[in-house]
Amino acid sequence: MGDQRDVRSLTVGVLGGTGDQGHGLAFRFTAAGMAVLIGSRDEGRAVGAADEVNRKVGNRSCAGAHNADIARRADLVIVAVPYAGHADTLRGLTGELAGKIVVDCVNPVGFDERGAYPVAVPEGSAAQQAAAVLPDSRVVAAFHHVSAVLLADPQVSSVDLDVLVLGDDREATDTVQALAAVIPGMRGIYAGRLRTAGPVEALTANLIAINRRYKAHAGIRVTDV
Amino acid sequence: MGDQRDVRSLTVGVLGGTGDQGHGLAFRFTAAGMAVLIGSRDEGRAVGAADEVNRKVGNRSCAGAHNADIARRADLVIVAVPYAGHADTLRGLTGELAGKIVVDCVNPVGFDERGAYPVAVPEGSAAQQAAAVLPDSRVVAAFHHVSAVLLADPQVSSVDLDVLVLGDDREATDTVQALAAVIPGMRGIYAGRLRTAGPVEALTANLIAINRRYKAHAGIRVTDV
Repeated sequence: MGDQRDVRSLTVGVLGGTGDQGHGLAFRFTAAGMAVLIGSRDEGRAVGAADEVNRKVGNRSCAGAHNADIARRADLVIVAVPYAGHADTLRGLTGELAGKIVVDCVNPVGFDERGAYPVAVPEGSAAQQAAAVLPDSRVVAAFHHVSAVLLADPQVSSVDLDVLVLGDDREATDTVQALAAVIPGMRGIYAGRLRTAGPVEALTANLIAINRRYKAHAGIRVTDV
Repeated sequence: MGDQRDVRSLTVGVLGGTGDQGHGLAFRFTAAGMAVLIGSRDEGRAVGAADEVNRKVGNRSCAGAHNADIARRADLVIVAVPYAGHADTLRGLTGELAGKIVVDCVNPVGFDERGAYPVAVPEGSAAQQAAAVLPDSRVVAAFHHVSAVLLADPQVSSVDLDVLVLGDDREATDTVQALAAVIPGMRGIYAGRLRTAGPVEALTANLIAINRRYKAHAGIRVTDV
């Protein structure tokens, strides 16, 4: 399942697909010709978000529904909800997500008058929290540093950055690396076990600081790979 | 002091300059024509390490001495000691380092049978620990992700990666960004306040995982900057 031809045949669900990051990813995978399902706690908002993706892409391969429905129907599920609702959202979907690859791209980051800062997660990282809540799922961490602005902009034809992919299940991380490579310009790079997802998630605070200083939409590339 | 002409006139001290990372940085700054001082707890080892740098470069602008002597004589001091001895080393040098830019490049990373993992630091990061121990110094975090192997290899003419520079003192971070740019191929990128140094230090565990998987000497580049 690790090569691109196979990964394109998967139905991708995006929990929290009405947020910026979720919308951007749903747009890119729909634009690549994949079947995409946008989930939300509010079915009406999910349908509206899917309509917006279909309008931008010019087809009908994105659909919206309630999170639980999406979790049941999708082959692979991306978790793009705010950190505040992360654990609770997943706790309600343990059955639907059992056996599936669950891609956590949640960034536990807070803001105050001095800017963004990492929020400590009891389990070590949002991805480890997901793995604790979903013991029967194949949790992978990825897509943390992808600018939602660049993702959502149809004028940006190539999203030139690397996606760090972390997890303990080799077939699952291979699949998610292949999924990243579906988006033009993007590479998926294996970057360690799930227990090292914390720094990758928290690095988002640094990228926000970079964006402020340089008026950029910063991402990262891994050199020598 | 932020431009390259001025930063080249500084005498750079490297505490822990007998280790791989310290040697690599001392070699590159010496090769760039700067005055470099290598420090160690063992003066003989420091002198030997400086001799090795001078041999590689073909001049005599690198000298070795005891850590305390280096800390006193250098304008800017790089801390490249192992994390295990980090706090104790700095505690003994508070007077010598007062008023100076102290560049912490220590990575609190541990290893077990599953690879590298971030080690929790009570102060949040090694750089914040340095700032706590050295309240009168201008602590900056930088040079965490620079491959010691590439740095030390005279055949590598350009070290093509970005150095993330963190700190709360703008003139100090500007200076360290300029210092990074002294090494051909390298850029210094401001990446946030000292309180966000933790993920940057800990990301070294991910780069080690990348190196193992891809047989690489991975670094990072920041995109869109």
